[in-house]
Amino acid sequence: MTSLEAARARDAADPLRHYRDRFFLPLGTIYLDGNSLGVLPKATVERQRKVVAEEWGSELIRSWNSRGWIDAPARIGAKIARLIGAQPHEVIVADSVSVNLFKLIVAAAALSPDRPQILSEGGNFHTDLHIASGAAELAGKRLDVVERAAVRDALSGETNLLLLTHVHFKAGYRFDIKEVTARAKAAGAVTLWDLSHSAGAVPLHLNRDGAELAVGCGYKYLNGGPGAPAFLYVAEHLQERLIPPLRGWMGHAAPFDFTDYYVPAPGIARFLVGTPPILSLSALESGVESFDGVDMDALWVKSVQLFDLFAALASERCPELQCISPAEPEQRGSHISFRHPHAFEICQALIDAGVIGDFRAPDVIRFGLTPLYLGFEDIWQAVDRMADILDSRRWREPRFAVRGKVT
Amino acid sequence: MTSLEAARARDAADPLRHYRDRFFLPLGTIYLDGNSLGVLPKATVERQRKVVAEEWGSELIRSWNSRGWIDAPARIGAKIARLIGAQPHEVIVADSVSVNLFKLIVAAAALSPDRPQILSEGGNFHTDLHIASGAAELAGKRLDVVERAAVRDALSGETNLLLLTHVHFKAGYRFDIKEVTARAKAAGAVTLWDLSHSAGAVPLHLNRDGAELAVGCGYKYLNGGPGAPAFLYVAEHLQERLIPPLRGWMGHAAPFDFTDYYVPAPGIARFLVGTPPILSLSALESGVESFDGVDMDALWVKSVQLFDLFAALASERCPELQCISPAEPEQRGSHISFRHPHAFEICQALIDAGVIGDFRAPDVIRFGLTPLYLGFEDIWQAVDRMADILDSRRWREPRFAVRGKVT
Repeated sequence: MTSLEAARARDAADPLRHYRDRFFLPLGTIYLDGNSLGVLPKATVERQRKVVAEEWGSELIRSWNSRGWIDAPARIGAKIARLIGAQPHEVIVADSVSVNLFKLIVAAAALSPDRPQILSEGGNFHTDLHIASGAAELAGKRLDVVERAAVRDALSGETNLLLLTHVHFKAGYRFDIKEVTARAKAAGAVTLWDLSHSAGAVPLHLNRDGAELAVGCGYKYLNGGPGAPAFLYVAEHLQERLIPPLRGWMGHAAPFDFTDYYVPAPGIARFLVGTPPILSLSALESGVESFDGVDMDALWVKSVQLFDLFAALASERCPELQCISPAEPEQRGSHISFRHPHAFEICQALIDAGVIGDFRAPDVIRFGLTPLYLGFEDIWQAVDRMADILDSRRWREPRFAVRGKVT
Repeated sequence: MTSLEAARARDAADPLRHYRDRFFLPLGTIYLDGNSLGVLPKATVERQRKVVAEEWGSELIRSWNSRGWIDAPARIGAKIARLIGAQPHEVIVADSVSVNLFKLIVAAAALSPDRPQILSEGGNFHTDLHIASGAAELAGKRLDVVERAAVRDALSGETNLLLLTHVHFKAGYRFDIKEVTARAKAAGAVTLWDLSHSAGAVPLHLNRDGAELAVGCGYKYLNGGPGAPAFLYVAEHLQERLIPPLRGWMGHAAPFDFTDYYVPAPGIARFLVGTPPILSLSALESGVESFDGVDMDALWVKSVQLFDLFAALASERCPELQCISPAEPEQRGSHISFRHPHAFEICQALIDAGVIGDFRAPDVIRFGLTPLYLGFEDIWQAVDRMADILDSRRWREPRFAVRGKVT
């Protein structure tokens, strides 16, 4: 089952194989970094040309209405909603993940003014912790950061908000949204999920699982382009209870009445702030549309298969690599990570050999498994090149030790 | 001096005339809304194609370094610095005007913790007031909003921050940055200027005039495209004294060390938050580069001439319009506004006649005078069509009274 022929046969039989044709995949490269920056959908090229030349260049200011720019944040949010198991009016596109985290942390602080604690995980993606520290200070809360294993027990009558990343950016450990949210709720706390490393690859059923608040990234699995705007999710029952700390005109109940006084827009729209970056937004819309017709459960099945093949091949052919991602599918995301004392040099040698993964300090190599456009042969070829680099010790070449040179 | 021939002669003699060739100007349209959304620079089209197809599509994640994406916010900021009279390291591009206002208001609150007042002007652009209200609440300050004429006298030992828009979005009244900043400083307060309606058209000498904090818009006079990212300015001497409330990884001293603890980047970079939207950012860079070689003082001289011609023609041919913009050049911006009880219908009839201006509730028509690409004949033709609409009473046609139909 780990031969090249077997991988090819699986690609030939893969019912999702045709989705690959929706994307430009760089020639001669195996791109295992779609969890950091997703690839370019073919539809985006023409869409961007049109937005620039026609909508901006010719229609100019009129496009805010005639081409639906003003509705883009809600329209794209509704499309993302399907991918994460939410109702269309519970998701909106705005700003960056970091800014959206700030909005929701500060807004949620008022839900239980007498509870002083914001709780998160040490080693969480650092922007989450940094943003939380600033938000906590302003909201008069205390940010407590505990080890992953201690998170559940640290919930108490003091906890206002539990801030967690669904799939950990490094090893790919995944929390059970349903179980953790319920536990936090039982303690009287609200949970804010960062879906950056899950939306678009890992099964998400926010409504079914009782999720209340979430943010997520547009430029990873959603293929929205470099630095694409982010999204945020607020469960319907909470929307009218949250007052955003960032009160911009796009989130005002009547943006074009130009009143001195702030009245939040009804529903999720109140979390908009300034004028959204339309060029980046429209690329995000194309990226999200690259999921049109895709069965998200089938996509996850394929992710699991890609992971299992990668793990089996690596264990067979690269025994010096230590896989640090969970073996159980329900405990992991859609990337696989390995530890090696020379992870940096190996990562550089891989890039030199046309296999693009990520180095994560101090000793981790991470490979994104994007089931929408990667095949089984891609995995086989990647591990084959990696085995060759390890067997030949080619990563010891001095050029691979120079930071910032090869990439 | 107000004949069509005279206007044409002035265009022929205009030393800035050739800059017009840098832009796509919509055929058959006189676009007087560049103060709301600037036109498309020709260079942007090829630049966007390249960013999408080559940088994202082919180079993918590597472009963060190889194509300079990671440096774009500071690089573009430095280019804007020349246009506003600042040092290159005092300006950075990030987020939206609204989000940047929030960052600076909250950060500045700590400069004088014992002063409870944030002071602003009633009728200021509403997002500024809304953002300030949210920021004030979180920072434990009080937002006091007074009439424009009362601003100077309202400064006191209680004032922490004075928040003003340099050029008013409606009538175009302009504050004297030097005089007002000095007066606020004498009262012990810091001043935050919103340059949205001035940067790229109105003379700005932030350093010379002692400006300490400012934000500005990328999509108006800077031609950065719809919803282009905004910029912020922090005078060198204040940079290390301000701690941003939005602590994202891009503003961290070592973004790729992935530490749990926040350490602000040195200098202006600490005001970055999340991953910047590269497609919109690169369009902004093209927009800012459309000012390459442009003498900003000469540009202002032309703006004054365009305004004076517009005012003279309108007074002569459209006497029922009441000009509400200041007559004195040093008191105004680069747009001209008129009052009329049927401003809305007239604005719609103008659009129908190919003259695009802005209606601002309840009774104002506003025309942006963008000296980089508008000529004297454009002004003549615009007023000619407006006179025709007024004389013929064509704006009374029922279709022009329907909101959102004609645009």
